[in-house]
Amino acid sequence: MTCTQVKALRDPISIAAEKIRKLEVQGGRNVAIAAITATENLASQTKAITKKEFLRELHRARETLFGSRETEPLMRNAIRLIIDQVEKNTDKSIRKLAETVSTASERFLKDLENSKERIAEIGAKRIRNNSTILTHCHSSTVTHLLKKARQDGRVFEIICTETRPVFQGKTTAREMLDIDVKTTFIIDSAMRFFMNKVDLAIVGADAITSEGNVINKIGTSMAALVAQEARTPFYVVSELLKFDPATMYGDYEKIEERDAAEVWKDAPKNLIIRNPAFDVTRRDFIHGIICEEGIISPHSVAEVIRRKYPWVFR
Amino acid sequence: MTCTQVKALRDPISIAAEKIRKLEVQGGRNVAIAAITATENLASQTKAITKKEFLRELHRARETLFGSRETEPLMRNAIRLIIDQVEKNTDKSIRKLAETVSTASERFLKDLENSKERIAEIGAKRIRNNSTILTHCHSSTVTHLLKKARQDGRVFEIICTETRPVFQGKTTAREMLDIDVKTTFIIDSAMRFFMNKVDLAIVGADAITSEGNVINKIGTSMAALVAQEARTPFYVVSELLKFDPATMYGDYEKIEERDAAEVWKDAPKNLIIRNPAFDVTRRDFIHGIICEEGIISPHSVAEVIRRKYPWVFR
Amino acid sequence: MTCTQVKALRDPISIAAEKIRKLEVQGGRNVAIAAITATENLASQTKAITKKEFLRELHRARETLFGSRETEPLMRNAIRLIIDQVEKNTDKSIRKLAETVSTASERFLKDLENSKERIAEIGAKRIRNNSTILTHCHSSTVTHLLKKARQDGRVFEIICTETRPVFQGKTTAREMLDIDVKTTFIIDSAMRFFMNKVDLAIVGADAITSEGNVINKIGTSMAALVAQEARTPFYVVSELLKFDPATMYGDYEKIEERDAAEVWKDAPKNLIIRNPAFDVTRRDFIHGIICEEGIISPHSVAEVIRRKYPWVFR
Amino acid sequence: MTCTQVKALRDPISIAAEKIRKLEVQGGRNVAIAAITATENLASQTKAITKKEFLRELHRARETLFGSRETEPLMRNAIRLIIDQVEKNTDKSIRKLAETVSTASERFLKDLENSKERIAEIGAKRIRNNSTILTHCHSSTVTHLLKKARQDGRVFEIICTETRPVFQGKTTAREMLDIDVKTTFIIDSAMRFFMNKVDLAIVGADAITSEGNVINKIGTSMAALVAQEARTPFYVVSELLKFDPATMYGDYEKIEERDAAEVWKDAPKNLIIRNPAFDVTRRDFIHGIICEEGIISPHSVAEVIRRKYPWVFR
Amino acid sequence: MTCTQVKALRDPISIAAEKIRKLEVQGGRNVAIAAITATENLASQTKAITKKEFLRELHRARETLFGSRETEPLMRNAIRLIIDQVEKNTDKSIRKLAETVSTASERFLKDLENSKERIAEIGAKRIRNNSTILTHCHSSTVTHLLKKARQDGRVFEIICTETRPVFQGKTTAREMLDIDVKTTFIIDSAMRFFMNKVDLAIVGADAITSEGNVINKIGTSMAALVAQEARTPFYVVSELLKFDPATMYGDYEKIEERDAAEVWKDAPKNLIIRNPAFDVTRRDFIHGIICEEGIISPHSVAEVIRRKYPWVFR
Amino acid sequence: MTCTQVKALRDPISIAAEKIRKLEVQGGRNVAIAAITATENLASQTKAITKKEFLRELHRARETLFGSRETEPLMRNAIRLIIDQVEKNTDKSIRKLAETVSTASERFLKDLENSKERIAEIGAKRIRNNSTILTHCHSSTVTHLLKKARQDGRVFEIICTETRPVFQGKTTAREMLDIDVKTTFIIDSAMRFFMNKVDLAIVGADAITSEGNVINKIGTSMAALVAQEARTPFYVVSELLKFDPATMYGDYEKIEERDAAEVWKDAPKNLIIRNPAFDVTRRDFIHGIICEEGIISPHSVAEVIRRKYPWVFR
Repeated sequence: MTCTQVKALRDPISIAAEKIRKLEVQGGRNVAIAAITATENLASQTKAITKKEFLRELHRARETLFGSRETEPLMRNAIRLIIDQVEKNTDKSIRKLAETVSTASERFLKDLENSKERIAEIGAKRIRNNSTILTHCHSSTVTHLLKKARQDGRVFEIICTETRPVFQGKTTAREMLDIDVKTTFIIDSAMRFFMNKVDLAIVGADAITSEGNVINKIGTSMAALVAQEARTPFYVVSELLKFDPATMYGDYEKIEERDAAEVWKDAPKNLIIRNPAFDVTRRDFIHGIICEEGIISPHSVAEVIRRKYPWVFR
Repeated sequence: MTCTQVKALRDPISIAAEKIRKLEVQGGRNVAIAAITATENLASQTKAITKKEFLRELHRARETLFGSRETEPLMRNAIRLIIDQVEKNTDKSIRKLAETVSTASERFLKDLENSKERIAEIGAKRIRNNSTILTHCHSSTVTHLLKKARQDGRVFEIICTETRPVFQGKTTAREMLDIDVKTTFIIDSAMRFFMNKVDLAIVGADAITSEGNVINKIGTSMAALVAQEARTPFYVVSELLKFDPATMYGDYEKIEERDAAEVWKDAPKNLIIRNPAFDVTRRDFIHGIICEEGIISPHSVAEVIRRKYPWVFR
Repeated sequence: MTCTQVKALRDPISIAAEKIRKLEVQGGRNVAIAAITATENLASQTKAITKKEFLRELHRARETLFGSRETEPLMRNAIRLIIDQVEKNTDKSIRKLAETVSTASERFLKDLENSKERIAEIGAKRIRNNSTILTHCHSSTVTHLLKKARQDGRVFEIICTETRPVFQGKTTAREMLDIDVKTTFIIDSAMRFFMNKVDLAIVGADAITSEGNVINKIGTSMAALVAQEARTPFYVVSELLKFDPATMYGDYEKIEERDAAEVWKDAPKNLIIRNPAFDVTRRDFIHGIICEEGIISPHSVAEVIRRKYPWVFR
Repeated sequence: MTCTQVKALRDPISIAAEKIRKLEVQGGRNVAIAAITATENLASQTKAITKKEFLRELHRARETLFGSRETEPLMRNAIRLIIDQVEKNTDKSIRKLAETVSTASERFLKDLENSKERIAEIGAKRIRNNSTILTHCHSSTVTHLLKKARQDGRVFEIICTETRPVFQGKTTAREMLDIDVKTTFIIDSAMRFFMNKVDLAIVGADAITSEGNVINKIGTSMAALVAQEARTPFYVVSELLKFDPATMYGDYEKIEERDAAEVWKDAPKNLIIRNPAFDVTRRDFIHGIICEEGIISPHSVAEVIRRKYPWVFR
Repeated sequence: MTCTQVKALRDPISIAAEKIRKLEVQGGRNVAIAAITATENLASQTKAITKKEFLRELHRARETLFGSRETEPLMRNAIRLIIDQVEKNTDKSIRKLAETVSTASERFLKDLENSKERIAEIGAKRIRNNSTILTHCHSSTVTHLLKKARQDGRVFEIICTETRPVFQGKTTAREMLDIDVKTTFIIDSAMRFFMNKVDLAIVGADAITSEGNVINKIGTSMAALVAQEARTPFYVVSELLKFDPATMYGDYEKIEERDAAEVWKDAPKNLIIRNPAFDVTRRDFIHGIICEEGIISPHSVAEVIRRKYPWVFR
Repeated sequence: MTCTQVKALRDPISIAAEKIRKLEVQGGRNVAIAAITATENLASQTKAITKKEFLRELHRARETLFGSRETEPLMRNAIRLIIDQVEKNTDKSIRKLAETVSTASERFLKDLENSKERIAEIGAKRIRNNSTILTHCHSSTVTHLLKKARQDGRVFEIICTETRPVFQGKTTAREMLDIDVKTTFIIDSAMRFFMNKVDLAIVGADAITSEGNVINKIGTSMAALVAQEARTPFYVVSELLKFDPATMYGDYEKIEERDAAEVWKDAPKNLIIRNPAFDVTRRDFIHGIICEEGIISPHSVAEVIRRKYPWVFR
C-alpha cells in the first residue's frame, strides 16, 4: 500500500474520530451513526485485496474510533457487529465483504430503531391511567415511550427535573406539553419533596455495566435512592446495545467531567468546579430494565446480552 | 382610645408586618429584628394607662406580626419573650413595662448573638484536620462555625452545592475562598457522586419541629439521605430559638413556595412550576443538632427547649 | 379494727378487682373508672382514724387492684395519683383525706377527658384535605380525632383493617360512615397492598414503655413496618397516662394471650392456637406520639412524663 | 367449514372457557387441566384438513381460553406448549397433529407432576431438624414438600397463618396435624409477633414475573417483609411454568379482586370493601425460588425459563 | 504559700495523675477511686485559709487530674461533684469544706455502688427464662446483672466473644461457668454466624456521649449492627456517670490506641498495626440503656443527666 | 476382577480420600490436585475391559472422594469434568479413555491456572491509584490480583484483618509488605472502625451457592455487612469452579467446625467452644464476583455456570 493509499484509507475514520473527540458529534446514537458511516466509507474505498488485509483495516479503524471517546458503548457495539459479520462471512470477494459492512451497519441501525419501538410498546403498558410519572434529564427513548402511552389513550401526569447544569429537563417538559400531558417542572434537589406522590420513576441510560448497574445523567442515582426510600418503582429504559462489555473485564465505566463553565461561568479564580456528567445507579435500586427483550432484572442483564448479542463479547 | 391613637399605635407594627409580608425583609434574623424594633417603637409610643391595656396592645401586635408570614419561628419567639417578660413584671408603671420591652428585646438579640458564637465554638471542634466537609446552601451560622475552625488552625476542604434556584452556594464558596479553604463547587444533584469522600456534612436550619425534624433549604433532606446511605455523619447547626412551638400543637410547618420565575423565567405557558423553598429532614438522618446548649440528639430537642426557654410554649 | 370492719373495707376494692380479673370490665378507661370508683367507696366508708391507717388501707387497695390484671397502666396511674395526693395532703382529718381521694379521682378523669379533647384538637390539624388515612383496630381516641377533623371541615378518606380476631375494624368503619367519610374496609394482611396510596397512618395505644415503644392491638407493628417501608408517616395517638412506669424498672410489658376460640372455634384437637392481643411497635417506626402535651418524639416520652406527671414514678 | 362444524369445534373450548370465567374451575392446576382437556377434545373432533386450518383452530382456542381469566400462567403455558409442538411437527397428517396435541398435553401434566416431586425432594433438604417453619395460606406444593421432609425423618414445627378471608390456613393446619407435625395457628397480623422464632418461611406462588417478583396470596409480601426485618430466610416454592411471559412484555400481573362478601357479609351499605386476592412480593425479599431446576435466585428466573422452556416466549 | 507548701499540696494529686497517665491504674472505676482519694488527701492536708484559696487548689487539682488521661468520664464526674459540693457549701470553715470533700467522695462512690445494684435489679428482669444472651468483652456491670438474674432463678445460656486482642471474654466465660450458666465461647468475627439464635445482646459502656452514642470495647458497634440486622434487642448497661459532658460541647470522645504488641508481638518491621481500644455504637442500634434511672432511650440520655446530675454540666 | 485387582484399583483413590479426610491435604486447590492425581493413577492402572467397567470404577472413585470431605466444590467439579469427558468419548479403547482422564485432568488444572491469571488481570483494573483496600483472611487469588495491580504500577494501601483463630491475615500482610504495599494490620472486630476510610473491600471464596451466596472464612459476612453500611463496594474474587451444584438441589453448604483448641487451648472444662470455619455472605452485599468470565452479578452466577461449565450439573 502506498502512503497516499493509507491516507485515503485513514481519512473517513480519522475525520469521524476527530469530530467525536472534539464533541462536535454528541449523544450515543449520533456518535454511533458517525462511526458507522465512516466505516462504510472506509469499506467502499478499500484497496485491500485479501480478507486479511481488509480485516486489518477494520481493526485499525476500530482502534482509532474506540480511542476517540472514553465511553460510547453504542458506537463500540456497532463496530463490533460490523467486524463480527465480516469475520463470519466466508466469501473471498472484497466487494462482498464491503457489502457486509453496509448490511451490518444497516442492521445495527434498524435494530436500534426497532428496539426503541419495542421498548415504547412494552414500557407504555406500565404507564397506568391517572398515574404520576417522574423522569430526570431528557431521554428520547423515555419520551418516545411516554408518547406511545399517550397514543394508547393513557392519561397521566409528569414531573420533570430541570437537570442542571444543561437543563435538559426543559426539552422533556416541552415534549410532554406538546402531547398535552400535565407537566410539572421542579429543580433537581426537590425530587425527595415530591417523591411520595409519584407512582413510577423512569429514566434513560447512557451505559449498562456487567454488574447490572446503570450509568446515566448525574442525579439519576439520587432519584433512584429517593424512589427506593418511598417504595416507588424505578425503571430504566434502554436498548441493550448500551451494555458496555469493557466493564465485564474490569474497566470502570469512565465518568466524563465536562466544562466547569457549564456550572458557573465567571467563577472565582481559586474555586474548583467538578462537573461529572453521569453517575452510577446501583442495580438494587432498579426494579427493571425495559429493553427490546422485555422487562428484565438488571442483575441478569449480562446473561441476556450473552444470549441475544453474543458478538458483543468478541 | 381615639381613632388617631389607634392609628398611631398601629403604625410601627403594621408597617413592619407589611414589609415582612411583601418580602422586603428576608431571612429569619432580619425578620425578627424588624418585628422587635417595631414592638419597641410601639412600647415607646404607647398611650396605654394600665398594664392590661398595654398587654392588649402587645397581643394585638403579636397577632398582626404572626399573620405577616407563615413560618418565622425566630420572630415569633422574640415576640413571645417580650410579652412573657412584660406579663411577669409586677410593676404597674407603664414606663417600666415599656422598658421591659426594650430589655427583653435586647436580651433576645444578645442571646441570639451569643448562641451563634457558642455554636461556632462547639461545632468548630468537630471539624477535624484534613477532613472534607460538605454543606448545602448558605447559612451564616455554618460559615461562622467554619471560620472559627479555621481560626483554631484547622485545615480542611469544603464541598458546596450550588443550591438551585437562587445559587446561595456561591456565597458559601466565596466566603470559604476568602479564608483560604480549598473549595469544590458542585451541582446539587452531584451530592451522591461525592458523598463517599465526605467526612462530615453540616447544614443550617430554618425551623425545628416538635418531633425533632429540621426544615431547611430544599435539597437538605436529600443530602441527609445520601449521607445516611454512606455512613457520613450529618449535623444541623441551629439556634434553639428556631424551634417552632406551633408544630407541637399539630400545625404542619408550612413550606413556602416561591416565585416560579426563579426556576425558569420564560417557561412555556401551560407548564406548572413548583418551587418549594424548603424540605423536611427526618430526625433519624441527623446525628446531632449543634446548638447553644451543646450537641444534642434531635429526638430530645423539644424537651431541651422546655427546659431552656419555657416561655416559648406560652 | 374488727373482722367485720375489715370485710366492709375490703368489699368495694375486692369486688372491683374480681370484675377486672374476670374481664367483666374491659378497655383501659373502663378498668380505670371501676378502680377509681371502688377507691372512692373505700375512702367514703373508711373507719381509719389516723392518716397512717388510711394510707395503709389505700396501699392495700393498690396491691389488690394492681394484681387484678397484668397490664393496665391507666388504672395503675389513677391509683398512683390518688395516693400521691393523699400523701401530700398535710391535713390530719380523715374526712378531708377522703375528700382528697374524690378530688384526685375527679381530676384524673377530668384530665383524661381533657387530654382526649386536646389530642383531637392537635391531631385533627394533621389530617390534610383530600388525604387518605389508614387506621388499624378501633380506638375511640383516634375516631374522636377524626371526627374533630371532619367538624373542622376537612375532607378525607379512611382505610380501616378488619382487625382479626374480634373485628374491631367494623366499629371504626361504622363510626366513619356515620360522619360521611369515604371508608374502605380491608383484611389485615392487605395493609402493604394499599400502603403506597396512604398519606398518613394513625393508631391508638394500650401502653407506652420507658424506651418509647408502643403496645397496641396485634398487627400494629406490621402496619408501622409497612408504613416505614413506603415512607408513610405513622402516628400514635395516646394519653400520656398510658405510660407504664413498670417498664422503666425492667418489667416487660406483658402481652395478654386471649381465648383460642376467638381465632378458631371448632379447631382440631391437637392444634396449638396462639392469640396474643397486642404487639410492640418500635419507636423508630413512629413519627410522633400525639398526646395532651402536643406531638412529641417517642424517644423522649419518659422525660415528658417525668416533667408532666412526676407522681407516676412514685 | 359449515356453521354446524364451527359450532361443534367451538364447543369444548367455549364450555371450558365459560367454566373458567365463572370460577366454576379454580386453582392454577385445575384451570390448566380444564383447558388442556378442552383442547384435546377440540383436536380429536377437528374437521380441519390442512395443518394451517388446524393451527387456525388452535389459535382461536387460545384466544378464547386466554380471555377467560386474567392471570392463569399455568393454563396459558400449557396451551403455548401444545401449539409449539404442533407447529414444530412437520407431519402433514391431521391425525398425527391431533396426536401431538395429546402428547404435548400429557407431557405438560407429567412435567408438572414431576416438577412437584422434584421440588419436594430439593426443598425437603432445607427443612432442618428441630426448626420452626412459617407458611402463609395453603399451597399443595408447599405441603407436599413438608410431607417429604417428614418422610425423610425430619422433625420440625410449623406456624401457619389463618389466611383471611377464606381461611386456607385451616387446610394447611389439618394437613400438618395429619402427619404429626406440631402446628401453631395464628392470625395473619401476628406474623411479626412470631417471626423472631421462625427459622425459615416458605410459601407457594400463583405467578412469577419477568422481573423476578412473585404473585401469591394477599399477605405474602408482608410475611416476606417481616422475614427480611428479622433476617429469616424466605423461600418461594413454585413450578417454573407459573412464569407469566406477558409480564416480560410490559403487562402488569392483574390482581384479581374477589367478592366483598368474603370479607364482610352484611356490611353497611356505603362501605367500600376491597378484596384483592394476591399481592406482589419483591425479588429482594426472596432468598430463593425452589423449582424443578433447583434453588435459583429470583433475579435470574426469566433467563432460567428462556433456557428450560423457550417455547413459553413464543 | 511557700514553695514547700506548694510541693506538699501538689503531691497526692500529681502522684495519682502520674499513675493514671502511666496506666498503672486502669479501668474507669479504679481511676475514679485513685483521683477521689488523692483529692481527699489534698483536702485533709490543705493549708488554705479562705474558701477561695481552697477552691483554687481544687481547680488546680482538677486540671492536673483531667490532663492525666484523655477520656475518663467517671473520674472527671467524681471531681466535678466534689467541687460542686464545696462551692455550694456556704460554711467558711476550711475544715468543714474539707469534710465536704470527703462527704462528696463517699457519696459518689456509694452512688456508683448503688447504681450497679439498681442496674442489676432492673436489668435482671430482662433476662427471660430459656433465652440465649450474647455479650462482648467483659463488663462487671453486665456480669453482676447476669448473676442477679441467676439468683432470681432465671435459666439462660450465654454466648461470649473472646474479645481480641486481650481476650477479656475469657473472664466473662469463667464468671458465667462459676454460676453454672451454659456458656459458649466464640471468636469475635463469628458474631453474625450465631446472632440469629440470640434473644438478647447486652454490653457495658466506657463512656456515653451527648448525642446518645456509646463508647465501648472495639467490636461493640459490630455486635450492635449485626443484632440490628437480625432484629435482636441490643441493650447497653451503664451507670449514668459514664456520661461525658465534654462531648456536649463538641469534643470528640478520644479513642485510645493501645500497644501494637497486644495485636502482634513479633510483627514485620514495616507493618503498621492499628489497635484502637474502643469504637462508637450509634444510638439507633441501641434498644435501651439500662441505668440507675431505669431503662431509657439513648436519644434522651443527656436530658436524663441534666435532671439527675445537673452538676455534671458545671 | 479378582479381589487383588480390586484392591490395587482401590488404592490410589482410598489413599487420597484418607488424606483428605484426615486434613493431611488442605485448601481447595490442593484437595482437587490430590483427587485428580489419584484418579489419573486409577486410570493408568485400570484392568477394566469395557467402557462400562471403566466408568463403574470412576463412579466408585467419585463416591469415595466425594465422601472424604463435606464441601470441596473444586475437587468435586474436577472429578465431574473427568467423568463427563470420558462419558462423551466414543472411543472404545480403554487406553484412549484413560488418556481422556489425563487430558481432562490437565485441562482442569490449566483452566484453574488460567482463571487465576484472568481474574488477576480483570480485577487489577478495579484497584485505583491511591485507594485503600480491605481484605479479610488470606486468599492467594486475592493477593495474586493485588500483585498484578502493583505490577501494573498502581499505588494503593491495604488493611488486613488478623483473621482469628488461625491468623491467616499475617500471611496476607507479609505478602503485601514484600511488594512494598503500605499495610495496616487490625483485629477482626475493628473492621467497622476503619470501614469509612476503605475504598474497596475484596475477599476470596471457598464455595459459591446456587442462590449466589458466597461461603468464605468466618467473618467475611460481617465485613460485607459493614461495607454495605458504609456504601463501600465489596467484591468477591473466585474461580467459577468453586460453584457447588449440590446447593442447587437443596443441600446446605456444610459449615465445617474446626478444633476448639484453635480458639482456646487450655479452656475451662465445661466451656463449649464453637469454631465454625466459614460463614455465608448474602448475594445482596456483594457488588460483583470477579471470575474468569469477568465481573458478574452474584444473582446470575448459576446461569453463568450453566453456560460455561454445563457438565458441572451432570
